[in-house]
Amino acid sequence: MPNPTAAILIIGDEILSGRTRDANMHYLAGELTRIGIDLKEVRVVADEMDAIAAAVNALRAGYTHVFTSGGIGPTHDDITADAVARAFATALRIRDDARAILAAHYDRSGLEFNAARQRMARIPEGAILIENPISAAPGFSLENVHVMAGVPDIFKAMVASLLPRLTGGKPILSQTLRIDRGEGVIAEPLGALAAEFADLSFGSYPFIQNGVYGANIVVRGTDPARIDAAIGRLAALFPDEGA
Amino acid sequence: MPNPTAAILIIGDEILSGRTRDANMHYLAGELTRIGIDLKEVRVVADEMDAIAAAVNALRAGYTHVFTSGGIGPTHDDITADAVARAFATALRIRDDARAILAAHYDRSGLEFNAARQRMARIPEGAILIENPISAAPGFSLENVHVMAGVPDIFKAMVASLLPRLTGGKPILSQTLRIDRGEGVIAEPLGALAAEFADLSFGSYPFIQNGVYGANIVVRGTDPARIDAAIGRLAALFPDEGA
Repeated sequence: MPNPTAAILIIGDEILSGRTRDANMHYLAGELTRIGIDLKEVRVVADEMDAIAAAVNALRAGYTHVFTSGGIGPTHDDITADAVARAFATALRIRDDARAILAAHYDRSGLEFNAARQRMARIPEGAILIENPISAAPGFSLENVHVMAGVPDIFKAMVASLLPRLTGGKPILSQTLRIDRGEGVIAEPLGALAAEFADLSFGSYPFIQNGVYGANIVVRGTDPARIDAAIGRLAALFPDEGA
Repeated sequence: MPNPTAAILIIGDEILSGRTRDANMHYLAGELTRIGIDLKEVRVVADEMDAIAAAVNALRAGYTHVFTSGGIGPTHDDITADAVARAFATALRIRDDARAILAAHYDRSGLEFNAARQRMARIPEGAILIENPISAAPGFSLENVHVMAGVPDIFKAMVASLLPRLTGGKPILSQTLRIDRGEGVIAEPLGALAAEFADLSFGSYPFIQNGVYGANIVVRGTDPARIDAAIGRLAALFPDEGA
Protein backbone atom coordinates (compact mmCIF):
# COMPACT_ATOMS: atom_id res chain seq x y z
CA MET A 1 0.00 0.00 0.00
CA PRO A 2 1.43 3.40 -0.88
CA ASN A 3 2.21 5.80 1.94
CA PRO A 4 -0.30 8.48 2.93
CA THR A 5 0.44 11.87 1.33
CA ALA A 6 0.46 15.37 2.75
CA ALA A 7 0.62 19.07 1.98
CA ILE A 8 1.59 21.95 4.23
CA LEU A 9 -0.15 25.34 3.97
CA ILE A 10 1.72 28.22 5.57
CA ILE A 11 -0.34 31.34 6.15
CA GLY A 12 1.38 34.64 6.69
CA ASP A 13 2.21 37.97 5.08
CA GLU A 14 5.41 38.08 7.12
CA ILE A 15 6.85 35.10 5.22
CA LEU A 16 5.90 36.55 1.82
CA SER A 17 7.35 39.97 2.64
CA GLY A 18 10.70 38.41 3.56
CA ARG A 19 10.45 39.71 7.12
CA THR A 20 10.37 36.26 8.69
CA ARG A 21 12.05 33.10 7.53
CA ASP A 22 9.66 30.19 7.90
CA ALA A 23 10.91 27.34 10.11
CA ASN A 24 7.80 25.14 10.33
CA MET A 25 7.95 23.65 6.84
CA HIS A 26 11.41 22.24 7.36
CA TYR A 27 10.54 20.90 10.81
CA LEU A 28 7.31 19.16 9.80
CA ALA A 29 8.88 17.82 6.56
CA GLY A 30 11.41 15.92 8.67
CA GLU A 31 8.78 14.60 11.09
CA LEU A 32 6.54 13.35 8.27
CA THR A 33 9.43 11.57 6.55
CA ARG A 34 10.19 9.84 9.84
CA ILE A 35 6.69 8.34 10.14
CA GLY A 36 6.17 7.49 6.47
CA ILE A 37 3.82 10.25 5.37
CA ASP A 38 4.99 11.59 2.00
CA LEU A 39 5.01 15.38 1.85
CA LYS A 40 4.14 16.25 -1.76
CA GLU A 41 3.51 19.99 -1.77
CA VAL A 42 3.86 23.15 0.29
CA ARG A 43 2.06 26.44 -0.29
CA VAL A 44 2.56 29.81 1.35
CA VAL A 45 -0.32 32.28 1.04
CA ALA A 46 -1.12 35.72 2.46
CA ASP A 47 -3.48 36.52 5.35
CA GLU A 48 -6.40 36.76 2.91
CA MET A 49 -9.66 34.89 3.32
CA ASP A 50 -10.12 33.85 -0.31
CA ALA A 51 -6.50 32.81 -0.78
CA ILE A 52 -6.54 30.62 2.34
CA ALA A 53 -9.93 29.02 1.63
CA ALA A 54 -9.01 28.27 -2.00
CA ALA A 55 -5.70 26.68 -1.00
CA VAL A 56 -7.36 24.59 1.73
CA ASN A 57 -9.90 23.25 -0.75
CA ALA A 58 -7.33 22.51 -3.45
CA LEU A 59 -4.99 20.71 -1.06
CA ARG A 60 -7.53 18.73 0.97
CA ALA A 61 -8.88 17.26 -2.26
CA GLY A 62 -5.43 16.21 -3.43
CA TYR A 63 -3.69 14.74 -0.38
CA THR A 64 -4.39 12.47 2.59
CA HIS A 65 -3.52 15.24 5.07
CA VAL A 66 -3.19 19.02 5.02
CA PHE A 67 -1.28 20.76 7.81
CA THR A 68 -1.67 24.52 8.23
CA SER A 69 0.59 26.89 10.12
CA GLY A 70 -0.31 30.39 11.28
CA GLY A 71 -3.23 32.75 11.68
CA ILE A 72 -5.02 31.31 14.73
CA GLY A 73 -4.16 33.96 17.33
CA PRO A 74 -6.40 36.68 18.80
CA THR A 75 -5.61 39.60 16.44
CA HIS A 76 -7.53 40.99 13.46
CA ASP A 77 -5.15 39.34 10.96
CA ASP A 78 -5.78 35.87 12.44
CA ILE A 79 -8.40 34.55 10.03
CA THR A 80 -7.36 30.94 9.43
CA ALA A 81 -10.24 29.40 11.42
CA ASP A 82 -12.73 31.57 9.54
CA ALA A 83 -11.17 30.61 6.20
CA VAL A 84 -11.17 26.88 7.01
CA ALA A 85 -14.82 27.06 8.14
CA ARG A 86 -15.63 28.82 4.88
CA ALA A 87 -13.72 26.23 2.84
CA PHE A 88 -15.82 23.47 4.45
CA ALA A 89 -19.01 25.59 4.40
CA THR A 90 -19.45 24.86 8.11
CA ALA A 91 -20.22 27.04 11.12
CA LEU A 92 -17.56 28.62 13.34
CA ARG A 93 -18.67 29.13 16.93
CA ILE A 94 -17.16 29.45 20.38
CA ARG A 95 -17.03 25.89 21.70
CA ASP A 96 -17.43 25.10 25.38
CA ASP A 97 -14.47 22.76 25.79
CA ALA A 98 -12.08 25.11 23.99
CA ARG A 99 -13.44 28.03 26.02
CA ALA A 100 -12.90 26.10 29.26
CA ILE A 101 -9.27 25.30 28.37
CA LEU A 102 -8.58 28.97 27.67
CA ALA A 103 -10.49 30.21 30.74
CA ALA A 104 -8.45 27.92 33.00
CA HIS A 105 -5.19 29.08 31.37
CA TYR A 106 -5.93 32.79 31.81
CA ASP A 107 -7.24 32.18 35.31
CA ARG A 108 -3.93 30.51 36.27
CA SER A 109 -1.97 33.33 34.62
CA GLY A 110 -4.03 36.07 36.30
CA LEU A 111 -4.83 37.55 32.89
CA GLU A 112 -8.20 38.79 31.72
CA PHE A 113 -10.06 36.36 29.43
CA ASN A 114 -11.21 39.19 27.20
CA ALA A 115 -13.13 39.18 23.89
CA ALA A 116 -9.99 38.92 21.72
CA ARG A 117 -8.84 35.87 23.67
CA GLN A 118 -12.30 34.28 23.56
CA ARG A 119 -12.05 34.50 19.75
CA MET A 120 -9.47 31.70 19.99
CA ALA A 121 -12.21 29.35 21.31
CA ARG A 122 -14.05 29.55 17.98
CA ILE A 123 -13.83 26.08 16.42
CA PRO A 124 -15.51 24.85 13.23
CA GLU A 125 -18.38 22.42 13.76
CA GLY A 126 -17.23 18.78 13.85
CA ALA A 127 -13.55 19.49 14.52
CA ILE A 128 -11.27 17.63 16.96
CA LEU A 129 -9.06 19.85 19.16
CA ILE A 130 -5.25 19.74 18.92
CA GLU A 131 -3.67 20.28 22.31
CA ASN A 132 -1.40 23.29 22.86
CA PRO A 133 0.65 22.69 26.02
CA ILE A 134 2.43 26.04 25.68
CA SER A 135 -0.15 28.81 25.35
CA ALA A 136 -3.37 26.76 25.71
CA ALA A 137 -5.23 28.08 22.62
CA PRO A 138 -5.96 24.85 20.77
CA GLY A 139 -5.53 23.97 17.12
CA PHE A 140 -8.02 21.66 15.48
CA SER A 141 -8.44 18.89 12.92
CA LEU A 142 -11.44 19.18 10.60
CA GLU A 143 -11.58 15.98 8.55
CA ASN A 144 -8.12 15.80 6.95
CA VAL A 145 -7.13 19.44 7.62
CA HIS A 146 -5.01 20.05 10.72
CA VAL A 147 -4.87 23.69 11.80
CA MET A 148 -1.92 24.76 13.96
CA ALA A 149 -0.22 27.91 15.24
CA GLY A 150 2.62 29.65 13.42
CA VAL A 151 4.91 30.43 16.37
CA PRO A 152 7.57 27.73 15.94
CA ASP A 153 7.61 26.48 19.56
CA ILE A 154 3.83 26.18 19.61
CA PHE A 155 3.75 24.61 16.15
CA LYS A 156 6.21 21.95 17.28
CA ALA A 157 4.20 21.21 20.42
CA MET A 158 0.99 20.88 18.39
CA VAL A 159 2.70 18.57 15.89
CA ALA A 160 3.77 16.41 18.84
CA SER A 161 0.15 16.31 20.07
CA LEU A 162 -1.23 15.52 16.63
CA LEU A 163 1.07 13.01 14.95
CA PRO A 164 0.35 10.02 17.24
CA ARG A 165 -3.29 10.26 16.03
CA LEU A 166 -2.32 9.83 12.36
CA THR A 167 -1.58 6.59 10.55
CA GLY A 168 1.86 6.60 9.01
CA GLY A 169 3.32 4.39 6.33
CA LYS A 170 6.71 2.91 5.70
CA PRO A 171 9.34 5.39 6.85
CA ILE A 172 11.33 6.75 3.95
CA LEU A 173 14.97 5.90 4.61
CA SER A 174 17.87 7.61 2.94
CA GLN A 175 21.61 7.47 2.60
CA THR A 176 23.82 10.21 1.26
CA LEU A 177 27.09 9.85 -0.61
CA ARG A 178 29.18 12.96 -1.08
CA ILE A 179 31.05 13.00 -4.38
CA ASP A 180 33.65 15.70 -4.93
CA ARG A 181 33.13 15.84 -8.67
CA GLY A 182 31.02 18.15 -10.80
CA GLU A 183 27.46 17.03 -11.48
CA GLY A 184 28.30 17.00 -15.19
CA VAL A 185 30.61 14.03 -14.61
CA ILE A 186 28.24 12.26 -12.21
CA ALA A 187 25.11 12.71 -14.33
CA GLU A 188 25.42 9.89 -16.86
CA PRO A 189 26.40 6.97 -14.58
CA LEU A 190 23.94 8.22 -11.96
CA GLY A 191 21.10 8.29 -14.47
CA ALA A 192 21.88 4.72 -15.50
CA LEU A 193 21.94 3.57 -11.87
CA ALA A 194 18.64 5.35 -11.16
CA ALA A 195 17.04 3.54 -14.11
CA GLU A 196 18.34 0.21 -12.80
CA PHE A 197 17.15 0.81 -9.22
CA ALA A 198 13.72 2.10 -10.26
CA ASP A 199 12.24 1.30 -6.82
CA LEU A 200 14.47 3.94 -5.23
CA SER A 201 14.69 7.69 -5.80
CA PHE A 202 18.05 9.30 -6.55
CA GLY A 203 18.56 13.00 -5.91
CA SER A 204 21.67 14.95 -6.83
CA TYR A 205 22.23 18.11 -4.79
CA PRO A 206 25.15 20.10 -6.11
CA PHE A 207 27.27 22.41 -4.00
CA ILE A 208 30.25 24.69 -4.39
CA GLN A 209 32.70 24.60 -1.51
CA ASN A 210 35.86 26.68 -1.56
CA GLY A 211 35.45 26.97 -5.31
CA VAL A 212 35.25 23.19 -5.79
CA TYR A 213 32.16 21.60 -7.31
CA GLY A 214 30.61 18.51 -5.79
CA ALA A 215 27.25 16.90 -5.18
CA ASN A 216 25.52 15.02 -2.42
CA ILE A 217 23.75 12.05 -3.91
CA VAL A 218 20.77 11.03 -1.80
CA VAL A 219 19.25 7.60 -2.30
CA ARG A 220 15.79 7.23 -0.79
CA GLY A 221 13.41 4.32 -0.43
CA THR A 222 11.75 2.01 2.06
CA ASP A 223 14.03 -1.06 1.76
CA PRO A 224 17.34 -0.57 3.57
CA ALA A 225 19.06 -3.47 1.75
CA ARG A 226 18.26 -1.96 -1.65
CA ILE A 227 19.57 1.43 -0.53
CA ASP A 228 22.77 -0.23 0.72
CA ALA A 229 23.18 -1.96 -2.63
CA ALA A 230 22.70 1.24 -4.60
CA ILE A 231 25.09 3.24 -2.42
CA GLY A 232 27.68 0.46 -2.78
CA ARG A 233 27.42 0.57 -6.57
CA LEU A 234 27.63 4.37 -6.56
CA ALA A 235 30.71 4.38 -4.33
CA ALA A 236 32.39 1.89 -6.68
CA LEU A 237 31.65 4.17 -9.65
CA PHE A 238 33.29 7.13 -7.94
CA PRO A 239 36.13 5.79 -5.82
CA ASP A 240 37.78 8.37 -3.62
CA GLU A 241 40.62 9.80 -5.71
CA GLY A 242 42.81 10.24 -2.61
CA ALA A 243 44.24 13.60 -1.60
CA MET B 1 -1.59 51.59 -10.29
CA PRO B 2 -1.28 48.49 -8.11
CA ASN B 3 2.10 46.83 -7.83
CA PRO B 4 2.99 43.86 -10.03
CA THR B 5 2.46 40.52 -8.28
CA ALA B 6 4.59 37.40 -8.10
CA ALA B 7 4.76 33.75 -7.10
CA ILE B 8 7.78 31.58 -6.38
CA LEU B 9 7.84 27.91 -7.35
CA ILE B 10 10.49 25.84 -5.59
CA ILE B 11 11.21 22.49 -7.17
CA GLY B 12 12.90 19.80 -5.16
CA ASP B 13 12.36 16.53 -3.34
CA GLU B 14 15.14 17.50 -0.93
CA ILE B 15 13.05 20.35 0.49
CA LEU B 16 9.94 18.16 0.86
CA SER B 17 11.86 15.36 2.56
CA GLY B 18 13.22 17.77 5.16
CA ARG B 19 16.80 17.07 4.09
CA THR B 20 17.48 20.63 2.96
CA ARG B 21 16.11 23.85 4.35
CA ASP B 22 15.18 26.17 1.50
CA ALA B 23 16.92 29.54 1.52
CA ASN B 24 15.83 30.98 -1.83
CA MET B 25 12.26 31.86 -0.91
CA HIS B 26 13.32 34.08 1.96
CA TYR B 27 16.03 35.76 -0.12
CA LEU B 28 13.85 36.51 -3.13
CA ALA B 29 10.92 37.61 -0.95
CA GLY B 30 13.11 40.36 0.50
CA GLU B 31 14.40 41.44 -2.92
CA LEU B 32 10.89 41.65 -4.39
CA THR B 33 9.62 43.72 -1.47
CA ARG B 34 12.51 46.12 -2.03
CA ILE B 35 11.54 46.81 -5.65
CA GLY B 36 7.78 46.89 -5.19
CA ILE B 37 6.75 43.52 -6.59
CA ASP B 38 4.19 41.93 -4.26
CA LEU B 39 4.92 38.27 -3.56
CA LYS B 40 1.50 36.61 -3.15
CA GLU B 41 2.19 32.89 -3.13
CA VAL B 42 4.94 30.28 -2.87
CA ARG B 43 4.67 26.64 -3.82
CA VAL B 44 7.10 23.79 -3.27
CA VAL B 45 6.63 20.71 -5.47
CA ALA B 46 8.53 17.48 -6.06
CA ASP B 47 10.81 16.68 -9.02
CA GLU B 48 7.82 15.34 -10.97
CA MET B 49 6.94 16.48 -14.48
CA ASP B 50 3.19 16.77 -14.00
CA ALA B 51 3.44 18.50 -10.63
CA ILE B 52 5.86 21.12 -11.98
CA ALA B 53 3.95 21.76 -15.21
CA ALA B 54 0.61 22.08 -13.39
CA ALA B 55 2.05 24.53 -10.85
CA VAL B 56 3.70 26.61 -13.59
CA ASN B 57 0.42 26.91 -15.45
CA ALA B 58 -1.63 27.74 -12.35
CA LEU B 59 0.81 30.39 -11.17
CA ARG B 60 1.61 32.08 -14.50
CA ALA B 61 -2.12 32.62 -15.07
CA GLY B 62 -2.54 34.21 -11.63
CA TYR B 63 0.42 36.52 -11.17
CA THR B 64 2.52 39.05 -13.10
CA HIS B 65 5.70 37.01 -12.55
CA VAL B 66 6.61 33.45 -11.60
CA PHE B 67 10.12 32.69 -10.34
CA THR B 68 11.26 29.08 -10.21
CA SER B 69 14.16 27.64 -8.24
CA GLY B 70 15.82 24.27 -8.83
CA GLY B 71 15.98 21.42 -11.29
CA ILE B 72 18.03 22.90 -14.15
CA GLY B 73 21.31 21.01 -13.68
CA PRO B 74 22.71 18.12 -15.74
CA THR B 75 21.37 15.10 -13.81
CA HIS B 76 18.38 12.84 -14.48
CA ASP B 77 16.28 14.54 -11.79
CA ASP B 78 16.72 17.98 -13.40
CA ILE B 79 13.49 18.24 -15.37
CA THR B 80 12.37 21.83 -14.82
CA ALA B 81 13.16 23.01 -18.38
CA ASP B 82 11.25 20.02 -19.78
CA ALA B 83 8.29 20.74 -17.48
CA VAL B 84 8.20 24.45 -18.36
CA ALA B 85 8.36 23.65 -22.08
CA ARG B 86 5.50 21.21 -21.58
CA ALA B 87 3.48 23.79 -19.62
CA PHE B 88 3.83 26.23 -22.53
CA ALA B 89 3.44 23.47 -25.16
CA THR B 90 6.64 24.69 -26.79
CA ALA B 91 9.77 22.95 -28.07
CA LEU B 92 12.89 22.40 -25.95
CA ARG B 93 16.11 22.28 -28.00
CA ILE B 94 19.80 22.92 -27.56
CA ARG B 95 20.24 26.58 -28.42
CA ASP B 96 23.45 27.86 -30.04
CA ASP B 97 24.06 30.86 -27.76
CA ALA B 98 23.51 28.83 -24.59
CA ARG B 99 25.74 26.08 -25.99
CA ALA B 100 28.49 28.61 -26.78
CA ILE B 101 28.39 30.03 -23.24
CA LEU B 102 28.75 26.54 -21.76
CA ALA B 103 31.42 25.44 -24.25
CA ALA B 104 33.56 28.49 -23.41
CA HIS B 105 33.13 27.85 -19.68
CA TYR B 106 34.20 24.19 -19.85
CA ASP B 107 37.01 25.08 -22.24
CA ARG B 108 38.37 27.59 -19.68
CA SER B 109 37.98 25.05 -16.89
CA GLY B 110 39.65 22.25 -18.86
CA LEU B 111 36.58 20.04 -18.36
CA GLU B 112 34.89 17.89 -20.95
CA PHE B 113 31.71 19.43 -22.42
CA ASN B 114 29.95 16.06 -22.35
CA ALA B 115 26.37 15.07 -23.17
CA ALA B 116 25.08 15.66 -19.62
CA ARG B 117 26.50 19.19 -19.64
CA GLN B 118 25.13 19.90 -23.11
CA ARG B 119 21.69 19.11 -21.71
CA MET B 120 21.92 22.42 -19.84
CA ALA B 121 21.93 24.28 -23.18
CA ARG B 122 18.37 23.11 -23.88
CA ILE B 123 16.18 26.22 -23.81
CA PRO B 124 12.47 26.46 -24.64
CA GLU B 125 11.68 28.26 -27.91
CA GLY B 126 11.23 32.00 -27.47
CA ALA B 127 12.96 32.28 -24.08
CA ILE B 128 15.42 34.99 -22.99
CA LEU B 129 18.55 33.74 -21.20
CA ILE B 130 19.30 34.67 -17.56
CA GLU B 131 23.01 35.07 -17.00
CA ASN B 132 24.81 32.80 -14.52
CA PRO B 133 28.15 34.38 -13.64
CA ILE B 134 29.05 31.51 -11.29
CA SER B 135 28.70 28.22 -13.15
CA ALA B 136 27.74 29.51 -16.64
CA ALA B 137 24.68 27.29 -17.26
CA PRO B 138 22.01 29.92 -17.93
CA GLY B 139 18.51 30.25 -16.59
CA PHE B 140 15.79 31.61 -18.82
CA SER B 141 12.64 33.73 -18.91
CA LEU B 142 9.77 32.38 -20.98
CA GLU B 143 7.07 35.06 -21.05
CA ASN B 144 6.42 35.75 -17.35
CA VAL B 145 8.13 32.61 -16.01
CA HIS B 146 11.72 33.03 -14.83
CA VAL B 147 13.61 29.76 -14.41
CA MET B 148 16.63 29.75 -12.11
CA ALA B 149 19.00 27.34 -10.36
CA GLY B 150 18.41 26.00 -6.85
CA VAL B 151 21.96 26.27 -5.46
CA PRO B 152 21.63 29.41 -3.28
CA ASP B 153 24.75 31.22 -4.54
CA ILE B 154 23.76 30.66 -8.16
CA PHE B 155 20.13 31.56 -7.47
CA LYS B 156 21.21 34.87 -5.93
CA ALA B 157 23.47 35.66 -8.89
CA MET B 158 20.67 34.90 -11.35
CA VAL B 159 18.24 37.07 -9.40
CA ALA B 160 20.78 39.90 -9.63
CA SER B 161 20.99 39.36 -13.42
CA LEU B 162 17.22 39.23 -13.82
CA LEU B 163 15.65 41.87 -11.58
CA PRO B 164 16.94 44.97 -13.44
CA ARG B 165 14.94 43.72 -16.45
CA LEU B 166 11.64 43.72 -14.52
CA THR B 167 9.40 46.69 -13.85
CA GLY B 168 8.83 47.20 -10.15
CA GLY B 169 6.20 49.20 -8.33
CA LYS B 170 6.16 51.29 -5.21
CA PRO B 171 8.48 49.69 -2.68
CA ILE B 172 6.60 48.36 0.33
CA LEU B 173 7.98 50.11 3.40
CA SER B 174 7.54 48.85 6.91
CA GLN B 175 8.17 49.77 10.52
CA THR B 176 8.08 47.40 13.45
CA LEU B 177 7.09 48.16 17.03
CA ARG B 178 7.87 45.58 19.65
CA ILE B 179 5.27 45.40 22.40
CA ASP B 180 6.03 43.29 25.46
CA ARG B 181 2.42 42.41 26.10
CA GLY B 182 0.41 39.37 25.14
CA GLU B 183 -1.41 39.54 21.81
CA GLY B 184 -4.69 39.12 23.68
CA VAL B 185 -4.22 42.59 25.19
CA ILE B 186 -2.98 44.15 21.96
CA ALA B 187 -5.67 42.67 19.72
CA GLU B 188 -8.60 45.01 20.30
CA PRO B 189 -6.88 48.42 20.06
CA LEU B 190 -4.74 47.12 17.17
CA GLY B 191 -7.83 45.99 15.26
CA ALA B 192 -9.40 49.43 15.71
CA LEU B 193 -6.23 51.16 14.49
CA ALA B 194 -6.02 48.82 11.48
CA ALA B 195 -9.60 49.70 10.56
CA GLU B 196 -8.80 53.43 10.83
CA PHE B 197 -5.61 53.17 8.73
CA ALA B 198 -7.17 51.00 6.05
CA ASP B 199 -4.50 52.00 3.49
CA LEU B 200 -1.83 50.23 5.57
CA SER B 201 -1.47 46.60 6.57
CA PHE B 202 -0.94 45.66 10.21
CA GLY B 203 0.62 42.34 11.10
CA SER B 204 1.00 40.99 14.61
CA TYR B 205 3.77 38.43 15.07
CA PRO B 206 3.74 36.96 18.55
CA PHE B 207 6.79 35.59 20.29
CA ILE B 208 7.70 34.01 23.59
CA GLN B 209 11.02 35.13 25.01
CA ASN B 210 12.26 33.85 28.35
CA GLY B 211 8.70 32.86 29.15
CA VAL B 212 7.35 36.35 28.46
CA TYR B 213 4.74 36.89 25.73
CA GLY B 214 5.09 39.78 23.31
CA ALA B 215 4.44 40.66 19.70
CA ASN B 216 6.14 42.55 16.93
CA ILE B 217 3.62 44.75 15.22
CA VAL B 218 4.62 45.42 11.62
CA VAL B 219 2.97 48.29 9.78
CA ARG B 220 3.41 48.12 6.01
CA GLY B 221 2.49 50.43 3.18
CA THR B 222 3.88 52.70 0.49
CA ASP B 223 3.49 56.12 2.21
CA PRO B 224 6.16 56.70 4.86
CA ALA B 225 4.24 59.57 6.53
CA ARG B 226 1.19 57.36 7.07
CA ILE B 227 3.34 54.59 8.52
CA ASP B 228 4.97 57.11 10.89
CA ALA B 229 1.55 58.31 11.99
CA ALA B 230 0.28 54.78 12.66
CA ILE B 231 3.40 53.77 14.58
CA GLY B 232 3.09 56.96 16.66
CA ARG B 233 -0.51 56.14 17.57
CA LEU B 234 0.42 52.56 18.39
CA ALA B 235 3.30 53.61 20.62
CA ALA B 236 0.96 55.98 22.47
CA LEU B 237 -1.51 53.13 23.05
CA PHE B 238 1.18 50.94 24.59
CA PRO B 239 3.61 53.24 26.39
CA ASP B 240 6.69 51.50 27.71
CA GLU B 241 5.86 50.46 31.26
CA GLY B 242 9.45 51.09 32.39
CA ALA B 243 11.56 48.41 34.02
